[in-house]
Amino acid sequence: AAHAPGPARLTIFLTPPFPFPLPVHKAAVASRLSSSAPAVFHSILHPQISAAENRTNLGLARAEPRRMVKAMAGCPAKMGFRMPAEWEPHEQCWMGWPERPDNWREHAEPARKTFERTAMAISKFEPVTICASAKQYPRVHELMEHQPNIRVVEMSMNDSWFRDTGPTFITREGGSDIGLAEQTIAGIDWEFNAWGGLGGGCFDDWSLDRSIAKKIVEIERIPRFAHTMVLEGGSIHVDGEGTCITTEECLLNPNRNPHMTKLEIENELKDFLGVTKIIWIPLGLHGNNKKCFIS
Amino acid sequence: AAHAPGPARLTIFLTPPFPFPLPVHKAAVASRLSSSAPAVFHSILHPQISAAENRTNLGLARAEPRRMVKAMAGCPAKMGFRMPAEWEPHEQCWMGWPERPDNWREHAEPARKTFERTAMAISKFEPVTICASAKQYPRVHELMEHQPNIRVVEMSMNDSWFRDTGPTFITREGGSDIGLAEQTIAGIDWEFNAWGGLGGGCFDDWSLDRSIAKKIVEIERIPRFAHTMVLEGGSIHVDGEGTCITTEECLLNPNRNPHMTKLEIENELKDFLGVTKIIWIPLGLHGNNKKCFIS
Repeated sequence: AAHAPGPARLTIFLTPPFPFPLPVHKAAVASRLSSSAPAVFHSILHPQISAAENRTNLGLARAEPRRMVKAMAGCPAKMGFRMPAEWEPHEQCWMGWPERPDNWREHAEPARKTFERTAMAISKFEPVTICASAKQYPRVHELMEHQPNIRVVEMSMNDSWFRDTGPTFITREGGSDIGLAEQTIAGIDWEFNAWGGLGGGCFDDWSLDRSIAKKIVEIERIPRFAHTMVLEGGSIHVDGEGTCITTEECLLNPNRNPHMTKLEIENELKDFLGVTKIIWIPLGLHGNNKKCFIS
Repeated sequence: AAHAPGPARLTIFLTPPFPFPLPVHKAAVASRLSSSAPAVFHSILHPQISAAENRTNLGLARAEPRRMVKAMAGCPAKMGFRMPAEWEPHEQCWMGWPERPDNWREHAEPARKTFERTAMAISKFEPVTICASAKQYPRVHELMEHQPNIRVVEMSMNDSWFRDTGPTFITREGGSDIGLAEQTIAGIDWEFNAWGGLGGGCFDDWSLDRSIAKKIVEIERIPRFAHTMVLEGGSIHVDGEGTCITTEECLLNPNRNPHMTKLEIENELKDFLGVTKIIWIPLGLHGNNKKCFIS
């Protein structure tokens, strides 16, 4: 039994790595480096449980896994969640890998080069996850094989704008008073319709993009708040201290949420982003084909 | 700045979650519940770094991420790695989701029901990851939406036998004397040819199965030892204390590694599994279409 694990090792093997309390954070990268620069967003994923805590929890952990709710219901703001500002410290960056030739020139090669350089640059400071289709996976894997801080994950998508299609990460302070003490981060999975659906949107099919937020929160094992309102991540900005900036051109566009009034949309933003004030700007970023973006 | 993070929070946001030392473990589930039962395998993934250690490492971490090698070279056994036995404590279970209709009867519906029940049962004791194709993903996600210990990850595959196509997890004690102290787990990515390639194997196309091991180690952010020898996980068993059992029918089959002698194969097993003794059984499991399995 020379190789048999000792007590210390055994403890580690027996303790559950998931779910542990995960403070997470999403913040969009404001700067798009060039016209073919990627939309990236960041998340924090970090274990708070010390080895000692794990040892303490050992007996319980095997017989009864920690309580974890995957599908969250209710109002995130009332549960203490808020969306952090993009300039708050974050931990990780998610990116989609561009592929479709009708949207990216020269079969997306120049875009891929830019995404590659961007990922390399970001990975010097924080972990990066690049999501690529099954078709692109072998190539991207080979490209990043020796990049220690970049992981490549298979993911189908209609396009690679993850800031719009990924979840909105929200965070809260942990604490036993909340009840579900484990869940200090969650992801909001908004409805997505390719920037306007069939009434002026970019694409006719967004079925794969609709699953991206689900897939990301599953990989990170964080709970998900599903929402029926159409919202792209690029259409909102928050300061993390109670204010959200958005555009009337986007959220009030009849091709997004025709059945909702401005007040109803405001209330949803307050409930889900943990903000108390909404600043509406009439028109979004000039020349942006997504028509309305705040960035 | 009511919502601005305080110093404690800031520390957590700034420290890197990856790479941290990850003891991991793979052990095949020996029992196949029925003819349509899934092949599953287990892995351990657990953070060893305490919050205090993270705080200490904070300054370094931002400027210079911890050293991590994704593509490992050299001899795992000499680096202190060994493959643990399947009965050693493990932490996590990976499964593939059956789909192809030529291999699974009734369009794989009975198999999926069995895989579903198996995942549910295992998840009562440890986290489970189910990998499903893009086509199957929405259905599996919905099925597992309220299963807190089961995550669903998109992954393309030719078939769902992850014990054969997934990485062989190997583990070692950490320690600064090893040099790369961070890497206490790794995955061996053997060559795979669908149980015999075009000369008697099960399928004509195994291009997607060949990437499964890569995808799993990438998701877990553990390093990968690539190997050119054809080996399915089901063809080997170890006791974790130096002995490997395998079959001549499988590893010595000319449709696996025709250019290697028995001695050469033995040496590779010793170098990569950390074993010192190989027990060869002439024929494998009777009636198994994979022809030769030790289990």
